Amino acid sequence: MTLFWDNNIGVRDEIIKVEMKMREALYTRSPSMRHIIDYLLEKGGKYIRSGLMILAAGNGDYDSDRITTLAASMEMVHLATLVHDDIIDDSDMRRGKESIQSKFGKDTAVYTGDYIFAKAYRLVAMNYNDHIDRFADRMESICMGEVIQNENRYNSNMNVRKYLRIISGKTAALFGLSILLGMHEAGFSEKESRTMGMCGYHAGMAFQIIDDCLDYSSDLKTMGKNTRTDLTNGIYTLPLIYALGDDKKGMLRDCIDSDRIDMDMIQRLVVENGGLEKSMDLAGKYTKKSITVLKDTGYRNNEEIMGVMKKLLGRKY
Amino acid sequence: MTLFWDNNIGVRDEIIKVEMKMREALYTRSPSMRHIIDYLLEKGGKYIRSGLMILAAGNGDYDSDRITTLAASMEMVHLATLVHDDIIDDSDMRRGKESIQSKFGKDTAVYTGDYIFAKAYRLVAMNYNDHIDRFADRMESICMGEVIQNENRYNSNMNVRKYLRIISGKTAALFGLSILLGMHEAGFSEKESRTMGMCGYHAGMAFQIIDDCLDYSSDLKTMGKNTRTDLTNGIYTLPLIYALGDDKKGMLRDCIDSDRIDMDMIQRLVVENGGLEKSMDLAGKYTKKSITVLKDTGYRNNEEIMGVMKKLLGRKY
Repeated sequence: MTLFWDNNIGVRDEIIKVEMKMREALYTRSPSMRHIIDYLLEKGGKYIRSGLMILAAGNGDYDSDRITTLAASMEMVHLATLVHDDIIDDSDMRRGKESIQSKFGKDTAVYTGDYIFAKAYRLVAMNYNDHIDRFADRMESICMGEVIQNENRYNSNMNVRKYLRIISGKTAALFGLSILLGMHEAGFSEKESRTMGMCGYHAGMAFQIIDDCLDYSSDLKTMGKNTRTDLTNGIYTLPLIYALGDDKKGMLRDCIDSDRIDMDMIQRLVVENGGLEKSMDLAGKYTKKSITVLKDTGYRNNEEIMGVMKKLLGRKY
Repeated sequence: MTLFWDNNIGVRDEIIKVEMKMREALYTRSPSMRHIIDYLLEKGGKYIRSGLMILAAGNGDYDSDRITTLAASMEMVHLATLVHDDIIDDSDMRRGKESIQSKFGKDTAVYTGDYIFAKAYRLVAMNYNDHIDRFADRMESICMGEVIQNENRYNSNMNVRKYLRIISGKTAALFGLSILLGMHEAGFSEKESRTMGMCGYHAGMAFQIIDDCLDYSSDLKTMGKNTRTDLTNGIYTLPLIYALGDDKKGMLRDCIDSDRIDMDMIQRLVVENGGLEKSMDLAGKYTKKSITVLKDTGYRNNEEIMGVMKKLLGRKY
């Protein structure tokens, strides 16, 4: 169980229930699927989306059972996306462990993801008729993010706008939905829920940019694995895109078009060309937008949410 | 456009609308996804599930727009399942053309299936709140069918019960749902809808068994492709399972456990051991159950539905 929420005891207790409900929902008599699910949940994620949903719901009064079940659905959608993402990215590692596709094969990863998606939909359909359309809509956003990303593989003319569309679908959409649904469950109006949803959305944009920055700012050993997968799969993220825009002698372009990827060189050039700096600036803009919503709305839990955002995105905000 | 419904002009006209709605629902600004979707719909299937839904709905009065949209959702779920199935089965061919996974790669096939699933859910969520849970439930059945099938690959102790569970999820569930939803849309009660749903379910069981029989009863050239995929992927279907149960000298078991699959020999032994005959008998039992429901309930379209069943499953019923 993650340590991320250890300073938010109320949230942490709810998240323990969220994980329990995920296990319940994903329970199956099939021994092979049980084995895979146990493997997946063994080193679960940080439950960021769940935590944000719960905190947002705490802006009003909410039903713990309903919220934790809804959060479980959200985490299941997220989990299924990761399982399928790893097939597409040919990733070997996920959350510090071997990915499903690497350990069990792409086939297993396909229907494991399908199974989890189906269970998530079932859970939402059974309990939250009013939310199912939003879930389905975000699912579509995630898919479109994947589609656009795939379309632009190995495209050294990949641009910022496309990148932002991708991460909007793949990451920000669910962050936004988590907070929106939390507010909804606490009885806030559609308008208020959407406004706070934007707080989550912008935080999600910042989160993904920072994540992509980490790929280029860590030392060689830790950077090696993830970036090799992204770059060798032709997935160009923001630091690289910005750096390519400032690639005066075309050296960076030569590097990524080369048959042998020189990580060392690429990382150096990305930093030199200002790719990291520009990206962090943009992340900062999104973070500011996110925090502004919290300050402007001033709901009772917003201070705590702000604390979590700072933990996720950087303390200077 | 399929010729299957050319003798049921009313149905055929509705199915033209169904296909149109699929195209509409699947439309995307992404050129690569559009290309894939066009490819998929170019040689669409027989729209069996749609046709059965429409015929069932014709047992009462129904809204053409609602039914065709619902049928489009159903076909989309079915289509997405096929796209993912082909990844799992490593299939090269689907509906006489190269499969998505073979032509575009497994990665593309993963998120193409996810995209179509998401669109299908969205369509159902937007229009048929009362049906979403059933859709989700059948989706889960399909997944579980895949899970159990995968669990039992290369298992020469694979048994009839497991096989029936697999096809129940993978095929019969959607056949049943199609008719159930058609009845529902025509205003019939839950009980009546479920009863007729069983007609579809049993027909689906028979349909899949017959399909699996065809793999072992065609001549070598036509049989070659599909069975090589099934057998070499360790997927043992009913004719083989029955034949293994009557494998007195262990010759059949030796054949399938061998490193080099001798199709000729396997087909011969399956027939000799009575595998085909027993399977067709069981298919006949399911077909009878299906037709009995039609005869017992006697709704106004049941004669026409019976005609379609005979076309699908065999005339002697």
